[in-house]
Amino acid sequence: MPYTAPLKDIRFCLDHVADTGCLAETELFAEATPETVDAVLGEMGKLATETLAPLQRPGDAGSKLENGRVRTPDGYKQGYEALAEGGWMGLAAEAEMGGMGLPLTIQTAVNEMQASACLSLSLCPLMTQGSIEALTAHASGALQEKYLTRLISGEWAGTMNLTEPQAGSDVGALKTKAEPDGDAYRISGQKIYISWGDHDLTDNIVHLVLARLPDAPSGSKGISLFLVPKYLEDGSENGVKTVSLEHKMGLHGSPTCVLAYEGSKGWLVGEENRGLACMFTMMNNARLGVGVEGLGVAEAATQHALAYAADRVQGKTSPPEGGTATGAIIDHPDVRRMLMEMKARTEAARAICYDTAKALDMARAAPEGDRKAWAARGAFLTPLAKAYGTYTGMEVSEIGVQVHGGMGFIEETGAAQFYRDVRVTAIYEGTNGIQAADLVGRKLSMDGGETARSILNEAEAEIATAQTPMTRNLAAVHEAAEDATQWMLAQNDMAERLAGSNAYLMVMSTLHAATLLHRGLRAAEAHMADDPDFYLAKIAVASYYLAHIAPEAISYAISAKLGSSLHYALTPEQMAV
Amino acid sequence: MPYTAPLKDIRFCLDHVADTGCLAETELFAEATPETVDAVLGEMGKLATETLAPLQRPGDAGSKLENGRVRTPDGYKQGYEALAEGGWMGLAAEAEMGGMGLPLTIQTAVNEMQASACLSLSLCPLMTQGSIEALTAHASGALQEKYLTRLISGEWAGTMNLTEPQAGSDVGALKTKAEPDGDAYRISGQKIYISWGDHDLTDNIVHLVLARLPDAPSGSKGISLFLVPKYLEDGSENGVKTVSLEHKMGLHGSPTCVLAYEGSKGWLVGEENRGLACMFTMMNNARLGVGVEGLGVAEAATQHALAYAADRVQGKTSPPEGGTATGAIIDHPDVRRMLMEMKARTEAARAICYDTAKALDMARAAPEGDRKAWAARGAFLTPLAKAYGTYTGMEVSEIGVQVHGGMGFIEETGAAQFYRDVRVTAIYEGTNGIQAADLVGRKLSMDGGETARSILNEAEAEIATAQTPMTRNLAAVHEAAEDATQWMLAQNDMAERLAGSNAYLMVMSTLHAATLLHRGLRAAEAHMADDPDFYLAKIAVASYYLAHIAPEAISYAISAKLGSSLHYALTPEQMAV
Repeated sequence: MPYTAPLKDIRFCLDHVADTGCLAETELFAEATPETVDAVLGEMGKLATETLAPLQRPGDAGSKLENGRVRTPDGYKQGYEALAEGGWMGLAAEAEMGGMGLPLTIQTAVNEMQASACLSLSLCPLMTQGSIEALTAHASGALQEKYLTRLISGEWAGTMNLTEPQAGSDVGALKTKAEPDGDAYRISGQKIYISWGDHDLTDNIVHLVLARLPDAPSGSKGISLFLVPKYLEDGSENGVKTVSLEHKMGLHGSPTCVLAYEGSKGWLVGEENRGLACMFTMMNNARLGVGVEGLGVAEAATQHALAYAADRVQGKTSPPEGGTATGAIIDHPDVRRMLMEMKARTEAARAICYDTAKALDMARAAPEGDRKAWAARGAFLTPLAKAYGTYTGMEVSEIGVQVHGGMGFIEETGAAQFYRDVRVTAIYEGTNGIQAADLVGRKLSMDGGETARSILNEAEAEIATAQTPMTRNLAAVHEAAEDATQWMLAQNDMAERLAGSNAYLMVMSTLHAATLLHRGLRAAEAHMADDPDFYLAKIAVASYYLAHIAPEAISYAISAKLGSSLHYALTPEQMAV
Repeated sequence: MPYTAPLKDIRFCLDHVADTGCLAETELFAEATPETVDAVLGEMGKLATETLAPLQRPGDAGSKLENGRVRTPDGYKQGYEALAEGGWMGLAAEAEMGGMGLPLTIQTAVNEMQASACLSLSLCPLMTQGSIEALTAHASGALQEKYLTRLISGEWAGTMNLTEPQAGSDVGALKTKAEPDGDAYRISGQKIYISWGDHDLTDNIVHLVLARLPDAPSGSKGISLFLVPKYLEDGSENGVKTVSLEHKMGLHGSPTCVLAYEGSKGWLVGEENRGLACMFTMMNNARLGVGVEGLGVAEAATQHALAYAADRVQGKTSPPEGGTATGAIIDHPDVRRMLMEMKARTEAARAICYDTAKALDMARAAPEGDRKAWAARGAFLTPLAKAYGTYTGMEVSEIGVQVHGGMGFIEETGAAQFYRDVRVTAIYEGTNGIQAADLVGRKLSMDGGETARSILNEAEAEIATAQTPMTRNLAAVHEAAEDATQWMLAQNDMAERLAGSNAYLMVMSTLHAATLLHRGLRAAEAHMADDPDFYLAKIAVASYYLAHIAPEAISYAISAKLGSSLHYALTPEQMAV
């Protein structure tokens, strides 16, 4: 895979699109100076490019379950060790626990590079990051000392155990039991879809497991969170069995396990029956993390397609009059269209993901009085980052296959693998439908639409900065988003909002990406003289998004405002006639 | 797979959407009475539902190359034999050669069902259909007697050999050689991407191979077509070697071969150096056939998702006030949105495919004076059918995965297989980019835009029939299409047209589908009393398309008219900065 970490693009997005300079001005992140950030990103760029990216294609052969243990693909162990030795698991973890205490925003950029290089392997540290967050916020000092430090060091890895066969999007339906046993508990039940539920990368695995205490209330209010290690302190097995691995369409390197807990010893994390709240602590970050997976695959697929198109010779090329012909398919107008679309969609997803991370960081680091607004912004943007980031990964990798022509359908090129791997990101960590429901339900209602209004206002302020054709494109999207938002807020029947939720999510994602890219475009114009080729590229790609892609919001807005009448015009029986 | 051939939907599309009643009024197709057509469709419906559909999942295990021969998945041979015994290869072939002489339109409906049931297996008869057409039009009487009759009977199967490693979309670059040898030729060279290039379903395989005669002009004007059997008349091997099978993302049951011709004996089909024209005889039909593959997968994926959604219980469901709750996920507004979108997109693709087939049939069967206009219509609609049909297959199977949630990413459910299988349809038989180029180039220019104008006029006439909200939706699409068409016709630099070609193809496909579905909607209203549940479904699904999906044309039209300036704002080097 010809992946090269796009450090300049990342830096540009941080500085001029998501405008994250405010972070280093806070006390909490005072150490995240531009120099430190550059050093960190440069290190990961090197690691991702040289060490992780070469694991992508061979990893497709898959992790295997042999004699009850998962064997990961050749090279994964060395890749993981490089990550652990570099201290990458603890990038955003607290310094007193051995972490670096850097902003989630920087973690996000680092995660993007890992996802681009080798998505399957990157899920292992990502699961660990989630565990670190949950234990930092909710575990007792004793548990933190014993487990958290080893997760941060990368010595051990973490997992998340939520889903059961009858409890997917509806986590409250889970049945795994926890029985008190001295100072601890005995956990029994079966969990499915456990990413990296077993592997050979670390000496121990720390499972975070949702289960029910005896006599717990039914539904989501009766769920508690437990820490269950694969091996106990004396080195003995803790009754966690890997029953099987799922046979998936993609992400073959990442073992997706069915785990059976057979009276496994576990320790309560947080309060009894508050497990879902503990999980939700990290849910925003995990959802952002999955959006970044989509972004990472989009970036990698774009680079991959660009390299192929610049090399593959086929047919007489026909650039416009005066255009230069290279003789490769990159000269064909429709191939050029596909490549510009890939680049533009990728930069849009990056803008939203980084801007979301900034808001989540500022919710912790901003002056006390501003935190609530930043938190609301982060909460509002998170479903956008998750759904639009993963939608972008799917869309861009789909185009990447197309750029390859017949070779795109043949596995050897790797274009198909991006397309297969990224597909699940629109599903796990809350399907994109759940994200859309979260947006039009909780996020639009939490403050009477105030945060939605602030996103619209931000677009208006951006529109006021210029009067170019690109500004007019942004204004058209803004008008559509304004209408759709007013319509949504006027609905009292939640089903009416939900009917248009997916379309509304696309409208708001497109608007926000367009606003951010317009801001970046202005910055690129101002800096043009410093690095003309680079800033010209920023301007062209942002313009492509604003002119060719952002108008999608207009069609989506029409659909978003139609309500549910056509959705329910037929009964399920009539649908199947 | 719970596929049931949608005979009523197919019949409705034939009668009221694509309005194919005119076929039986012609002399050529006088025997294609409604009764005959019903009998034929009913037979295929039974075969597809009971015999072919069960082969879909097991076929994913794939065809294998063993000792130089391809072994197909278990059950494929029985499936193929049922097709051959039923006379299905010769449905549209001439009666004097043993065919049934039915319209391509009926063949199209039959192909849809085969593609829905088991796409991989269906490609084998589809390749044979193409061979039958080419040999009917161009082969000598002797070749027809020896080979054509056995292809029509299904005793032998046919293949198409165009592509070589350096000659994909640019067929003219091919290098395979043909040297005269008595009354025949010796063929030498390597061909790739040969669907069903070898298999164990028939005793012999008839390859149609494009190759160059000695001293032939370079490029596409120096290519001739040869018939090369796998086995010669005396039963001896003819030097056709299966070098390898491609490792593909999907369509595993269909063996995609690299074939080496090592001095294989072949016979000229048609005139010397006119091979590409011979291939083009069947190109329109083959392109339509691939569009129908997309349609078939869309229909199957829709049925599959609908069955899952009506069965899977997850979360509290929230239909609108007054709506009935089944308790399954089909009650969720966004799941309902996905299912209605799947149904609507599928019916749109069916409308375009059947209408294209009708035009191609009428180009042969209509009164002499009308044939040219029908042929022009068929030529104009073919790239729409191919690209929009396959786009629909991809989009609908993508949604089908999403409806399944986590189970969609697990291979066992089969949702992922639809998504993987259908992906290549947007690539082979001319990538969708090639279709778009054909549309804005040859098809828009062949008559100064007259046929495009007739499609726009047809929409206008449909708009004049009613004044409902759905009619206004159609009118909005028409306005966008009118603008885009005028813009396209005003461009002299072909690169400007090509830059917007994909978007323009989507605009015109959406317009034509919307016109046809609006027509169907009116017919359903008129017939309502006959079968209320069925016609209500037709109205609801057509309305969903017109209200929620057709507005996409408005965004596409904006992009279609922007020209190439942003595509070429960067050099290839600047794109890779």
